[in-house]
Amino acid sequence: MTGPGPTGVTAARGFVAAGGACGVKDGGVPDLSLVATADGRPVAAAGVFTSNLMTAAPVIVSRDHLAATGGRAAAVILNSGNANAATGAPGRRDAEAMCAAAASEVGCDPTEVLVASTGLIGIPLPIDVIVAGVPAVAADRSAEGGAAAADAILTTDTRRKEAVAAAGGAVVGGMAKGAAMLAPSMATMLAVLTTDADVDPATLQRLLADGVEGSFNRLLTDGCRSTNDTVVILASGEAGPVDEAALGDAVAAVCTSLAEQMADDAEGATKVVRLTVAGAATAADARTGAEAIARSALCKCSWYGLDPYWGRLASELGAAGIAFDQERISVAYGGVTVAAGGVTIAHDEEAVDAHMAGFHLEITCDLGLGAGECTVLTNDLTHAYVDENMGTS
Amino acid sequence: MTGPGPTGVTAARGFVAAGGACGVKDGGVPDLSLVATADGRPVAAAGVFTSNLMTAAPVIVSRDHLAATGGRAAAVILNSGNANAATGAPGRRDAEAMCAAAASEVGCDPTEVLVASTGLIGIPLPIDVIVAGVPAVAADRSAEGGAAAADAILTTDTRRKEAVAAAGGAVVGGMAKGAAMLAPSMATMLAVLTTDADVDPATLQRLLADGVEGSFNRLLTDGCRSTNDTVVILASGEAGPVDEAALGDAVAAVCTSLAEQMADDAEGATKVVRLTVAGAATAADARTGAEAIARSALCKCSWYGLDPYWGRLASELGAAGIAFDQERISVAYGGVTVAAGGVTIAHDEEAVDAHMAGFHLEITCDLGLGAGECTVLTNDLTHAYVDENMGTS
Repeated sequence: MTGPGPTGVTAARGFVAAGGACGVKDGGVPDLSLVATADGRPVAAAGVFTSNLMTAAPVIVSRDHLAATGGRAAAVILNSGNANAATGAPGRRDAEAMCAAAASEVGCDPTEVLVASTGLIGIPLPIDVIVAGVPAVAADRSAEGGAAAADAILTTDTRRKEAVAAAGGAVVGGMAKGAAMLAPSMATMLAVLTTDADVDPATLQRLLADGVEGSFNRLLTDGCRSTNDTVVILASGEAGPVDEAALGDAVAAVCTSLAEQMADDAEGATKVVRLTVAGAATAADARTGAEAIARSALCKCSWYGLDPYWGRLASELGAAGIAFDQERISVAYGGVTVAAGGVTIAHDEEAVDAHMAGFHLEITCDLGLGAGECTVLTNDLTHAYVDENMGTS
Repeated sequence: MTGPGPTGVTAARGFVAAGGACGVKDGGVPDLSLVATADGRPVAAAGVFTSNLMTAAPVIVSRDHLAATGGRAAAVILNSGNANAATGAPGRRDAEAMCAAAASEVGCDPTEVLVASTGLIGIPLPIDVIVAGVPAVAADRSAEGGAAAADAILTTDTRRKEAVAAAGGAVVGGMAKGAAMLAPSMATMLAVLTTDADVDPATLQRLLADGVEGSFNRLLTDGCRSTNDTVVILASGEAGPVDEAALGDAVAAVCTSLAEQMADDAEGATKVVRLTVAGAATAADARTGAEAIARSALCKCSWYGLDPYWGRLASELGAAGIAFDQERISVAYGGVTVAAGGVTIAHDEEAVDAHMAGFHLEITCDLGLGAGECTVLTNDLTHAYVDENMGTS
């Protein structure tokens, strides 16, 4: 999907970006990113934020800013290394200080800046260090800065995550961080998208919400929703208006690619599982069932153990509160049906074992009841996951 | 709670029991239990079974028998080592064969026998071995056989689980198996209670349901509901009628003790956590919140890591879909409040560390919104849990 030229958030015309080290992280590791319009003027913007009622200060401030401007923004400032998880006024004050520092460099109003923080929780945000670091990063911003910006938002991620898609004459680009299996100290998924399509804020909000629904919201790792999850998009308009459906497809494609990159880079995971529940009585049942399996410690451990243990998946579906008939269910691993009509059937065990040994698993549970279907991406539960989540220190 | 004399299922007058080895398990390990009325006549009986729609054959047969008899039974036959997880007619045929074998020895109708199986899944039940073993175990039954019966239902449990409580002039006794953190191969909680109170089946059913609700249904380990979960009670009537409230209290006390013994014996766990969500807007909110925390891999890993990480608990409550105000929440570990009004407060860190180092943790999250309260028992998520659940072989 990525073509020649600038990648990620600077692939669309009208945007500049930079990433650098301000000192939140030790050893000069990049920890501060800025994405801005090239001329510092505000453009159409939209955001989708965590549904967790325990909401981090940067999310509150970004929501407030989008509401105050009627969906316009000129910049996004992001730090990694510390999640600014302080509740109440102190956390909001720090988030506002980051916006003000970025606005001063970009030449916009502080309310035209969106903000995000990710990293350790429980340690006060070194706000003075961040504010002092903004000018140098801002001075470095350019149309070639997308990759550096994408690097500076990473935490336990092992690789940069960028994606680009075309929509008629326009481009949608994006960057993300998130190591899928949410770890205690960096429990955040962040994504910033840009486009040069000319689109109003309300439409942009709808297209982003749809794109997130089919991608990041289908990525279930350990079932925990972060207090900081943030996806924002800015539209410069430089490519003029484009077909709305094409733009929506491009937004969805970028979101989907970024979500898949997060799943592939999941902390502590040895498997990425594309899990489909089909044949459900309703689409809602299919989703409830898929999420129940994706949250099941027992199912996740079985994938880690390379065990095509279909009965455990069926048991989760039976307990999920959805329409279920144990004598109709069938389960397939990698396209090989191992159970049908609720009983194990003769199948190519070597083919199943070979599939289970891979990194990407495809598992389908067919409830045999209707046309409801849902696919989610998830991971296995491993010793490394326990290691990474035993504590903050 | 246990006094002198027979313990467990033979503490109440009018019951006999035995446990022995029929050969489902290797090496002569006990694997077959029988509990019966002393004279073989049916008495008032009640049962509470798994709510999982994926239901094991013994559960289906026991439900059918209670319905057919109008709530009367003369015996309970239980095997360990194999869960009889076959679906459809074959599984039911095997469960009926166990009932018939027990009925033949006890001298009752096969529909007056309840049945339960626990152990490995996915291996055909060696029904001939079980049926052949019933006469020897039945011949051994006596009023002193409660402990042997309790031993023969264990799987990965490390110790026998029995409890006794008085209700006026009557006694309620019980035995259980279950290693709390449901392992793949022995994902079952079983309990058999007896009483010598004179009580009708409908009342007995209600008292049992109430007792289960406040005990086994408050025990959340990994959030998975087994296909085999079974709790049954038989009432011989030999002590005559007793106060219904007192009988209910005794049933609840036995259920609670057995649930606590299961939590203490949890597979792979290093902590038993008594988790209370208080101050919720409603009791339903409190329960939803407590269950969300008890199911959270992140929270469970933090307990394993001795980390009093209150923000992770608060985040689960914020995501639980209940009324929540992040600036009102307070959290206490072992009675020491570490956060209030949504922020960390000064507290005795040594006292908290000492509490976290223990085996039994007491954690209270107060939402500060109302009077809703719920307490659940749960465990931590450990390397050993992953080990035990990686596969069936």
